[in-house]
Amino acid sequence: MKQGPVIALSGGVGGAKLALGLSRLGLGDDLLIVTNVGDDFEHLGLNICPDLDSVTYALAGLNDQEKGWGRADEGWRFMAALGELGGDNWFNLGDRDLAMHVLRTEALARGESLTQVTRSITRQLGITAQVVPMTDDPVRTMVQTADGPLAFQHYFVRDRCEPVVTGFEFEGIAAARPQADFMTALSDPELLAIVITPSNPFVSVDPILALPGVRAAMAAAPAPVIAVSPIVAGLAIKGPAAKMMAELGMPSTALAVAQHYGGLLDGFVLDHGDQDQADAVAALGIRPLVTKTVMQSLEDRIKLAEFVLAAADELAP
Amino acid sequence: MKQGPVIALSGGVGGAKLALGLSRLGLGDDLLIVTNVGDDFEHLGLNICPDLDSVTYALAGLNDQEKGWGRADEGWRFMAALGELGGDNWFNLGDRDLAMHVLRTEALARGESLTQVTRSITRQLGITAQVVPMTDDPVRTMVQTADGPLAFQHYFVRDRCEPVVTGFEFEGIAAARPQADFMTALSDPELLAIVITPSNPFVSVDPILALPGVRAAMAAAPAPVIAVSPIVAGLAIKGPAAKMMAELGMPSTALAVAQHYGGLLDGFVLDHGDQDQADAVAALGIRPLVTKTVMQSLEDRIKLAEFVLAAADELAP
Repeated sequence: MKQGPVIALSGGVGGAKLALGLSRLGLGDDLLIVTNVGDDFEHLGLNICPDLDSVTYALAGLNDQEKGWGRADEGWRFMAALGELGGDNWFNLGDRDLAMHVLRTEALARGESLTQVTRSITRQLGITAQVVPMTDDPVRTMVQTADGPLAFQHYFVRDRCEPVVTGFEFEGIAAARPQADFMTALSDPELLAIVITPSNPFVSVDPILALPGVRAAMAAAPAPVIAVSPIVAGLAIKGPAAKMMAELGMPSTALAVAQHYGGLLDGFVLDHGDQDQADAVAALGIRPLVTKTVMQSLEDRIKLAEFVLAAADELAP
Repeated sequence: MKQGPVIALSGGVGGAKLALGLSRLGLGDDLLIVTNVGDDFEHLGLNICPDLDSVTYALAGLNDQEKGWGRADEGWRFMAALGELGGDNWFNLGDRDLAMHVLRTEALARGESLTQVTRSITRQLGITAQVVPMTDDPVRTMVQTADGPLAFQHYFVRDRCEPVVTGFEFEGIAAARPQADFMTALSDPELLAIVITPSNPFVSVDPILALPGVRAAMAAAPAPVIAVSPIVAGLAIKGPAAKMMAELGMPSTALAVAQHYGGLLDGFVLDHGDQDQADAVAALGIRPLVTKTVMQSLEDRIKLAEFVLAAADELAP
């Protein structure tokens, strides 16, 4: 395989699966996983970064594979005690997971950047890939709903994605500077691929793409941009992507995801089950790349990662 | 029994035992437990108040009676994860206990006083006694040792009380204002008793006594001041009191504790085992009050509390 940097844009769980696959291909620190921070929020005085943590836990092998989120062998004594004390307990914080939030909050309060804190923690956990936040500046996703705007975690966790979505706003995005290593990698002549992982297009990937200068840098980058569809057979593998698409008046299809990313893409990976949409993807000027996209085992993750990088090699100019 | 306020000055574990006994005598919110904050510290960005929490957990029935500190049915997943992430883990924070620190830290950051936070939490836990910090201002006990000064928790927990003590300093004490309800109660004409619980004289009780105006207000108070010896048969029931006394060149005896408090006391409770020191206590102008002071059962706590209040009644002017 060719040597050179690979950038993966990731949200939480779905993105973390492919990020784990990519991390097993021997790229070392040439793999740069750029993670959404629009889901981040302050809760109980703690800085919580769900997508960064999902990626970190997955790459360190600490994630709960059955539950699909959070840490394995997690405990809930903190939450039980919080309830007894009358604390705000709509957001579940596991006893192990808390260590991450407490350490990060302390480091940020000391003046470290989110990039620095994340680097310390991922190195401590033996992760060789570079995991970076999309920006060190605050960006907060607001979900516009029929009932008014909701902070992302209020929509996602507290209200269980029940409100009807009408749009999204990324507060702070205009002033946010894309993370420096991310921008450097985008203009690296050796760059092999820019992978948009199968995370939610609206709330996981779009915040990254909406950072000033990112779309232009991706368009100008020497490497192909390949997205993996988070929609398979009209369903989201996890989370509210399909529901959001329906509420936004789009068909819940892989094709609609390809259309959403549009001219940014060189290739689009869709599942065998959605092979009938390949021609329509090709008609958008995007190379359709059909394979098995549902990642159940570690082997599935690695195979999909290999498939994406092989496709990038083919699509390279 | 007479009606009126009772003040108890308390440190952590030993004080909390007698505070629990006092809280079972039907005093309701006439019982004001004034708690040392010299042991408080900031750790991992959290505001930790060990003495306030020992009293609160004891009164709420949430304390671990076997271990003698912390909460019952405590878990240690947070600490395990903190270690994995490379965090500072010399101070044990239980998973349940963390809820207290997180809630308090958030409330203080919001601008609530320690008095307000403590009131909310103790009420939420169904505690009818008033538990108040000795002050809402920062006071930090520094232990002077042969190796230099140590912040209290570094001396007490990290260094396991091993350094030889040469003295104590209460940083911030000159500017600290005694808690308002405490000062009001001291001048209440109905005040029944001021009880110095069997906590460490040097690091639990002295910080309270060192607050500007407190000694004078105690001397002027209409109620008798009665201390319970934390030393029985030359040993501290718990903690480093006896070791400190030896290092400070004092005999490790109940009598030496009475001498330490000196003219502040009207009565001094010592154990049957130390009855031979009663005459020497009387010679100090302090009424010796001999009873069983070792509190193993809840009944022991209640009986000792009853004994102290009965003695206060006898000693009342």
